[in-house]
Amino acid sequence: MALVVQKYGGSSVSDAESIKRVAKRIAEAKRAGNDVVVVVSAMGDTTDELIDLAQQVSPLPPQREMDILLTAGERISMSLLAMAITSLGVKAKSFTGQQAGLITDAVHGKARIVDVVPTRVRETLDRGQVAIVAGFQGVTQSTNDVTTLGRGGSDTTAVALAAGLDADVCEIYTDVDGVFTADPRIVPSARKIDRITYEEMLEMAASGAKVLALRCVEYGRRYGVPIHVRSSFSGKDGTFVSADAYTARPGASAGSPAGTAGSTADLPEETVMEDPIISGVAHDRSEAKITVVGVPDVPGTAARIFEVVAGSGVNIDMIVQNVSAARTGLTDISFSLPEGDGPAAMSALSALQAEIGFDSLQFDDQIGKLSLVGAGMKSHPGVSAKLFGALRDAGINIEMISTSEIRISVVTREDSLDDAVRAVHTAFELDAADGEAVVYAGTGR
Amino acid sequence: MALVVQKYGGSSVSDAESIKRVAKRIAEAKRAGNDVVVVVSAMGDTTDELIDLAQQVSPLPPQREMDILLTAGERISMSLLAMAITSLGVKAKSFTGQQAGLITDAVHGKARIVDVVPTRVRETLDRGQVAIVAGFQGVTQSTNDVTTLGRGGSDTTAVALAAGLDADVCEIYTDVDGVFTADPRIVPSARKIDRITYEEMLEMAASGAKVLALRCVEYGRRYGVPIHVRSSFSGKDGTFVSADAYTARPGASAGSPAGTAGSTADLPEETVMEDPIISGVAHDRSEAKITVVGVPDVPGTAARIFEVVAGSGVNIDMIVQNVSAARTGLTDISFSLPEGDGPAAMSALSALQAEIGFDSLQFDDQIGKLSLVGAGMKSHPGVSAKLFGALRDAGINIEMISTSEIRISVVTREDSLDDAVRAVHTAFELDAADGEAVVYAGTGR
Repeated sequence: MALVVQKYGGSSVSDAESIKRVAKRIAEAKRAGNDVVVVVSAMGDTTDELIDLAQQVSPLPPQREMDILLTAGERISMSLLAMAITSLGVKAKSFTGQQAGLITDAVHGKARIVDVVPTRVRETLDRGQVAIVAGFQGVTQSTNDVTTLGRGGSDTTAVALAAGLDADVCEIYTDVDGVFTADPRIVPSARKIDRITYEEMLEMAASGAKVLALRCVEYGRRYGVPIHVRSSFSGKDGTFVSADAYTARPGASAGSPAGTAGSTADLPEETVMEDPIISGVAHDRSEAKITVVGVPDVPGTAARIFEVVAGSGVNIDMIVQNVSAARTGLTDISFSLPEGDGPAAMSALSALQAEIGFDSLQFDDQIGKLSLVGAGMKSHPGVSAKLFGALRDAGINIEMISTSEIRISVVTREDSLDDAVRAVHTAFELDAADGEAVVYAGTGR
Repeated sequence: MALVVQKYGGSSVSDAESIKRVAKRIAEAKRAGNDVVVVVSAMGDTTDELIDLAQQVSPLPPQREMDILLTAGERISMSLLAMAITSLGVKAKSFTGQQAGLITDAVHGKARIVDVVPTRVRETLDRGQVAIVAGFQGVTQSTNDVTTLGRGGSDTTAVALAAGLDADVCEIYTDVDGVFTADPRIVPSARKIDRITYEEMLEMAASGAKVLALRCVEYGRRYGVPIHVRSSFSGKDGTFVSADAYTARPGASAGSPAGTAGSTADLPEETVMEDPIISGVAHDRSEAKITVVGVPDVPGTAARIFEVVAGSGVNIDMIVQNVSAARTGLTDISFSLPEGDGPAAMSALSALQAEIGFDSLQFDDQIGKLSLVGAGMKSHPGVSAKLFGALRDAGINIEMISTSEIRISVVTREDSLDDAVRAVHTAFELDAADGEAVVYAGTGR
């Protein structure tokens, strides 16, 4: 018997019918002999509708009240799900973040989990019942106030509970079949990844893959929680995320046909033996580029620029400094950043112009970032050459480059990003052999 | 400076616009120097929509989950209201029933308040802020589970908080101008009642007047909380409910123009001096009548019948036993009861037929009940004669009669109830002199 934490996003519980379908799946997992804890997001568009209501009554709603408002969404979905499961003859009880013991700090809107004390969840399992827990929410220990965890909050709730309960696996149900070698909307021949390490998944998530929240993967890595990203629309295995992608899958895989779960016997041998250089190609359209033109090429200037930008609360991603043109003694410095941080960075830099004496600032939101992710990439020196070659052959210009142990990212024009992703995906032989069916339509929070 | 508890029903906060309007009213009360606590119901039809969702996923939802589901409604309205007030420059914080210290027993769906510990509400007032509290909900002390108070729950929350905080007045805002001498939809000339005692209000509420929940009036009477029923659409005084209808009104009446609140100086003298025989005419279409035909007229038979009916969980209202027909030794026993209790009562009585040996059972849901309510009625013996005379003159047959110290109720055919209400209202000179404007459209919970 395994202890399974299952997380269902908003698109999996968007109406009464889908709630009943999910309930059936949970009841089957329970009847198969597992202890089942379910984390659930708000139904479909509930959160957006509540945010819209808030904006109608207040231009700048206090975050504490916003958190109370938004947590109503999970309250609705979790109680409906418990009802639906109970009506199938399986006892289920729902718990708020507070009742489930998700203790957070007091930073409303993006609280961090400081402790998980799932006493009532454990009691519910011990009674042979299913425990449903509201995702995305917690409570402060000192004031008993409701908090929300911010983006990817429900995924994080699930992994945190799995860690707190020492669960065998944390299953993240979504509306896609798993993590793909590229976004199937751009690359129709993209393949589902069967196994991936936390580190690769972190790079994929940080580089724009949206199926798993970065924070949830970080939490999973820290506490060694095996994560299984899978579709709530099929019984097929999805993508296993763990410390070593090539160990056997975790014992519990509640939705799989009996006998196949927990073994690798059903996998083609070549998949297991294949050289694991490349996991996939991620892309990101959400960044912009700022270029500081005509910066005096003297020591400390670049440091001063990035000190000021960081001080304005902006997260810088990639940086490029041109070689100084000897005849002028001036250089250009470019960096990429989240598009939304653009105004803050531009305003901070403008205030610096007199002090540093650069010529001008350029803001460019028409960029795209492609990232090739794969463990062991560094030990295969041909990877970057192959990447640049593929882009050159496709006629795509590279504007910036950055690398990590297991990732190479390049910035291109936004309108050539899709072509770039397809070219690289093909060059690294990631394309599926046949036109295997792919479901992909974005994820809940 | 007064401490005012204001309660707004669902129809007063049905959308963003009405929430903003209510927020303005609350901010004015605060700026006028009052300490303000607000109890709020769920927005408009939210509760009905949630009940509908529950029925879609489960034929018989567990009450514990139902309570979690329904309390989402107040969570939404209370946080939106706090945001709207804050955006007007008045600090406001919202609290769930749990956070506001509304401790109940564990009877989900119709919990009783066992204690009120409004520590956080008091702290909020002490900081000069407005406290918004979710109506209709509480928490069990032992398990920390969410409960709901059942029908009229938000009114009861308001009065309970007013008692716990020793408030100067509990203002119940609704979509009508107050308590009327009759339902203005039936009697267009009905007048607003300026003052009424708890006892009279209890009789009105028990007899079908829907503007205040019976339970809320009972609570107010027990703890001596002055209640002011008034419209959220106007600044006019509504109806004051207190132990003595002829004392001065409570000091705080936050929504009234400065200077008039808390004094009776603006009232016409004849209103104050008028003989308080009749408060109003209530009516009720929600009852049915069961007649047990041909009951052997022997001692103990009636007792046995009502013992069995009570044992089936049915609340009997009025009872009539015909004089025994000497030639047969048989009698008929009729009683009225809530229409919804009809099946349970009929089935309990059928099972008794062999034992008692009555002829047959008749079920009649086409009855209406009219109740004339007024303190001091008993000391004016002409009242019932005048009532029966008015009905006779209007050609209306009386099927059952019951009386209390301050109420006379009669059962008529349902289709003559409206005529009966109008005839009695006129006979007791309750009609307004002119066609004063009346707002009436039902109330929130």
